[in-house]
Amino acid sequence: MLRSLSVFLLRMRAVDLIRKKRDSGEHSREEIDFLISGYTRGDIPDYQMAAWLMAAWLRGLNRSELASLTEAMLYSGEVLNLSRIPNRKVDKHSTGGVGDKTSLIIAPIVAAGGLAVPMISGRGLGHTGGTLDKLEAIPGFNVNLSLEEFYRVLRECGMGLIGQTAEIAPADKKIYALRDATSTVENIGLICASIMSKKLAEGIDALVLDVKTGSGAFMKSEADSVRLAELMVETGKRMGKKVVALITDMNQPLGRMAGHANEVAESIEVLSGRGPADLIELSLELAAWMFFLGERSKTLDEGRQLAKEMIAGGQAKEKFKQGIKLQGGDGRVVDEPRLLPEARSHVDVPSASAGFLTATNCEQLGIALAMLGGGREKKEDSIDHAVGLEFHKRIGDRVEKGEPLATIHYNSGTKLAEAKNLIGASYQIGEAEPSEKPPLIHRVLGA
Amino acid sequence: MLRSLSVFLLRMRAVDLIRKKRDSGEHSREEIDFLISGYTRGDIPDYQMAAWLMAAWLRGLNRSELASLTEAMLYSGEVLNLSRIPNRKVDKHSTGGVGDKTSLIIAPIVAAGGLAVPMISGRGLGHTGGTLDKLEAIPGFNVNLSLEEFYRVLRECGMGLIGQTAEIAPADKKIYALRDATSTVENIGLICASIMSKKLAEGIDALVLDVKTGSGAFMKSEADSVRLAELMVETGKRMGKKVVALITDMNQPLGRMAGHANEVAESIEVLSGRGPADLIELSLELAAWMFFLGERSKTLDEGRQLAKEMIAGGQAKEKFKQGIKLQGGDGRVVDEPRLLPEARSHVDVPSASAGFLTATNCEQLGIALAMLGGGREKKEDSIDHAVGLEFHKRIGDRVEKGEPLATIHYNSGTKLAEAKNLIGASYQIGEAEPSEKPPLIHRVLGA
Repeated sequence: MLRSLSVFLLRMRAVDLIRKKRDSGEHSREEIDFLISGYTRGDIPDYQMAAWLMAAWLRGLNRSELASLTEAMLYSGEVLNLSRIPNRKVDKHSTGGVGDKTSLIIAPIVAAGGLAVPMISGRGLGHTGGTLDKLEAIPGFNVNLSLEEFYRVLRECGMGLIGQTAEIAPADKKIYALRDATSTVENIGLICASIMSKKLAEGIDALVLDVKTGSGAFMKSEADSVRLAELMVETGKRMGKKVVALITDMNQPLGRMAGHANEVAESIEVLSGRGPADLIELSLELAAWMFFLGERSKTLDEGRQLAKEMIAGGQAKEKFKQGIKLQGGDGRVVDEPRLLPEARSHVDVPSASAGFLTATNCEQLGIALAMLGGGREKKEDSIDHAVGLEFHKRIGDRVEKGEPLATIHYNSGTKLAEAKNLIGASYQIGEAEPSEKPPLIHRVLGA
Repeated sequence: MLRSLSVFLLRMRAVDLIRKKRDSGEHSREEIDFLISGYTRGDIPDYQMAAWLMAAWLRGLNRSELASLTEAMLYSGEVLNLSRIPNRKVDKHSTGGVGDKTSLIIAPIVAAGGLAVPMISGRGLGHTGGTLDKLEAIPGFNVNLSLEEFYRVLRECGMGLIGQTAEIAPADKKIYALRDATSTVENIGLICASIMSKKLAEGIDALVLDVKTGSGAFMKSEADSVRLAELMVETGKRMGKKVVALITDMNQPLGRMAGHANEVAESIEVLSGRGPADLIELSLELAAWMFFLGERSKTLDEGRQLAKEMIAGGQAKEKFKQGIKLQGGDGRVVDEPRLLPEARSHVDVPSASAGFLTATNCEQLGIALAMLGGGREKKEDSIDHAVGLEFHKRIGDRVEKGEPLATIHYNSGTKLAEAKNLIGASYQIGEAEPSEKPPLIHRVLGA
């Protein structure tokens, strides 16, 4: 009674909204707006938002609440106005994994093909790498452009790769930091609102989502990955965007390289028409969807052809060089990858037994990389861009005893033994050849 | 894996403990200690404790976790050492309600009977009154004694009535303020830990718990009241204390008075051998249990006799006067209650119909009192000690149309009409005489 009277007599209060979610109530759009704008302004303190986030994590948010949350976060800051750029704008977002460097490959392919790619990316944390960190392995590359500089780069070469600025979805930035400190990260609804508010702030026409699934993904089960993908597709479509989601495999690293400099080098390999088959296939597929949704190709297959041509004709590689230079980086790395930072030492991780590779603990491989300095255990950690892992075996491959499973490229011997053990323990060797290998693309949703 | 590795490689982290409780894990004693001591010291920020509290609220804490929590909060501060006082120490705690002023009556009775009553009380909030606020209606009464002054008063007269000092269970004080702001108050486990950590810090031998049940109690259902009572009795016994809990009725106000000055006056009435039957009965019963658990009487019945004698012989009233004086108050109020603050005006609330009083919305009566300034809607509100309500009818009484149900004693006309309406609407008048009245004492647990 006191409660209902207070709400009636006084203004809306955060404490009552926390109680409502705690008791499984459904928030109105006005209530979500009050929470998000109040928190962004600093009127609602961290501790009240933390309690609400935990209640929302445990009680859930329905579709209508999620739509309100995404929009409140989106409109907490600036939505880019890219009307000065005539081309259609498309982007791709991946939920992250180990060795997932497709952004570096497809941004140049799609920009070379005539679409604009305004890509706002993130940093790596825990077992996953981040596009911004990888780009910073290129000497001089500046991911911290002002929005004005970003517009200029985008207009000039059709692609721009930057980090979340203070203007873009500030509510998401503040809430994400709080979620990280309060164990409220791994929730499909909150993840969806966080990703989509940032991506929709890019002012894009279409979005291709790469939702990872498997032992190296945030979502380990395909069912969870599909739920997240469906929610993001629905949210994007409700906001009038063309959206498709590919559920792709992260039961083992993508490509042969994980780390920063060596992932840039591997991306250049692919842009040069070489590189590992899985990375080539996924990059072409994602680029094809971007061409198709961006109405640059009439069919998906035409999109695939166009992506291949951009590599074969060298346009994508040239576009990457142009983009690097425009963002202050040393464009020579594209032709001379040895200009990228290189680790001083390397050591192999041999297989303890003979047989077939049946599975990898892919998250553990990412953790081993972070241990060696090639990733962040905490947000404040700095990164050694030269450190990396090279993977020699894929699931289904025959392995001899003593044969190298992976090679560690390292600078510091601290934790080397530990990382080596962890990598060794991440490979599961069985006697029989596995009857089937994980598919690279599990499903496509929203098409 | 990142998680388990972190815990293994690094020190204990709040974020991992939040996750554990979020995922329904059971905390070890060390984990609870880490959280409570870290939060009390300020190493763990409010937002992490808020997220943990919400997770604990929704996932629950089992018996073993609650024992750890209570002890961690208890030992976050000083546990009073009352060994310099030879008498056995007993206290009573009530979960609060409307018109519940038994502390003011039984502390003098029990002290007069030869036991020591070191009573650390709270303030009122919402529809409930607080012992400290009531005592402050006595001109000059100081509830903010230092622990040294508290010892002196207790040694001299056998009773001392103060508020929670900075030394007593500082963790509880800090956590309670946070719970209040994050809608994590109404949880039986957290309530139990909060009450018991403070009461056990008093260095008592025995504790009588008065757990209210009904429309004016925090626990509206008898089942919830019993659950809380059982938990508190178990916690107290585990800590080696004699504990009993009475489940008592709060479906209507206790006694005829609610407010501050008028509750002091009514308490003096009872100490003078007069006053309403329900208040006399409950006071004698609680005092009797204190005598019995404090080994001042061999049986409960002997305790009842002793309590009655302390009133009849005037010793309890004299003890109250002595206690008031020792805490700086004007002891003359005991003989001249008109020295207490008095409201300037009064108005009756008449019954809209004739019949029998079948029920009251007792919480609503407390809210009406707070509206008039005789309680706090927010913690920061000040209190008008002169404002009060006088209740003329009890459940089962015959009521004529226009006959006063209650009288409002007020100073300010603001919200008077609103409060009057609320009071009128709090009385349910039926045509038939109710077949049974609520019992005063529902159950006794732990005896």
